[in-house]
Amino acid sequence: MNLYDATVPVFTKLLRNVDRWLDKTVAYADHKKFDPQTLLAARLAPDQYPFVRQIQSACDQAKFTVAKLTGKDAPSHPDTEKTIAELRARVKTAVDYLGTFKPEDFVGAEERACSHTWMQGKTLRGGDYLDHFALPNFHFHLTTAYAILRHNGVELGKRDYMTGQPIRKPEAVPA
Amino acid sequence: MNLYDATVPVFTKLLRNVDRWLDKTVAYADHKKFDPQTLLAARLAPDQYPFVRQIQSACDQAKFTVAKLTGKDAPSHPDTEKTIAELRARVKTAVDYLGTFKPEDFVGAEERACSHTWMQGKTLRGGDYLDHFALPNFHFHLTTAYAILRHNGVELGKRDYMTGQPIRKPEAVPA
Repeated sequence: MNLYDATVPVFTKLLRNVDRWLDKTVAYADHKKFDPQTLLAARLAPDQYPFVRQIQSACDQAKFTVAKLTGKDAPSHPDTEKTIAELRARVKTAVDYLGTFKPEDFVGAEERACSHTWMQGKTLRGGDYLDHFALPNFHFHLTTAYAILRHNGVELGKRDYMTGQPIRKPEAVPA
Repeated sequence: MNLYDATVPVFTKLLRNVDRWLDKTVAYADHKKFDPQTLLAARLAPDQYPFVRQIQSACDQAKFTVAKLTGKDAPSHPDTEKTIAELRARVKTAVDYLGTFKPEDFVGAEERACSHTWMQGKTLRGGDYLDHFALPNFHFHLTTAYAILRHNGVELGKRDYMTGQPIRKPEAVPA
């Protein structure tokens, strides 16, 4: 098992879904005749991040996960997006960064010491970082972004989140 | 790497958080003088599962994940909960089931053929099932449950979701 499989293809696929969510957001706004950018500031509670920040956070968690597991310095991506076009570009930047990684980059990742500034010099073992922090946090932000759009009436369904299952035909299964 | 680490302790920890979310739900209802059971039916969109079903789904995904990865038959847990006490019991049932698993049960889990009825006889390789279906689906339902409570004013914060990071002190890190 290589932690590449648990990160790069999963983050890439799920972040790419955001483009379709934004297509549906724009279509819904056209239909209802409102400015789709207003949904960038939508949130489910007044003390919760708005949609744009949820997407930025998911992008950042994907980026930091692969960087920290492989011992690289993550590039800085300031949270400056103010339009849907800019948010699409931010997602593409994250997906393109994920695309620079290869399975061999993740050799030894499970035991690598991973740290964020909020850990104040302490670390998580790579496998623990992935299971207990990175994956829950990535899905937390991406699901909340999806929920904000759903709550506002964008025509999304579960299949817009849980896409592209690598299902095998019966004959492909080893006996 | 053993898939036990990516499943049993993570699901157990996150499902146990639900008890605290329900404590805060009851405290909020007491303060605002409404019946806390009403929040079991709360949802973010009219065509989305309500809170109770989101928790039931998270419990089921945890249960099915460990059963399918280890080649066991998952017990049936009908979705009959109508009160907060019953929902707490449902979560406890899932957590207790998770507690019956040991790391050795997961030997070979990565390559095991995993299937749900919706796959119509097709399968996912165990590692793919975990990365592409089970973990995203578990977090999707648990995060949505959390978001429903947040949206309704229950005093929850991110630390009620992302709990118990197994952070190591600096001296515990291998040189």
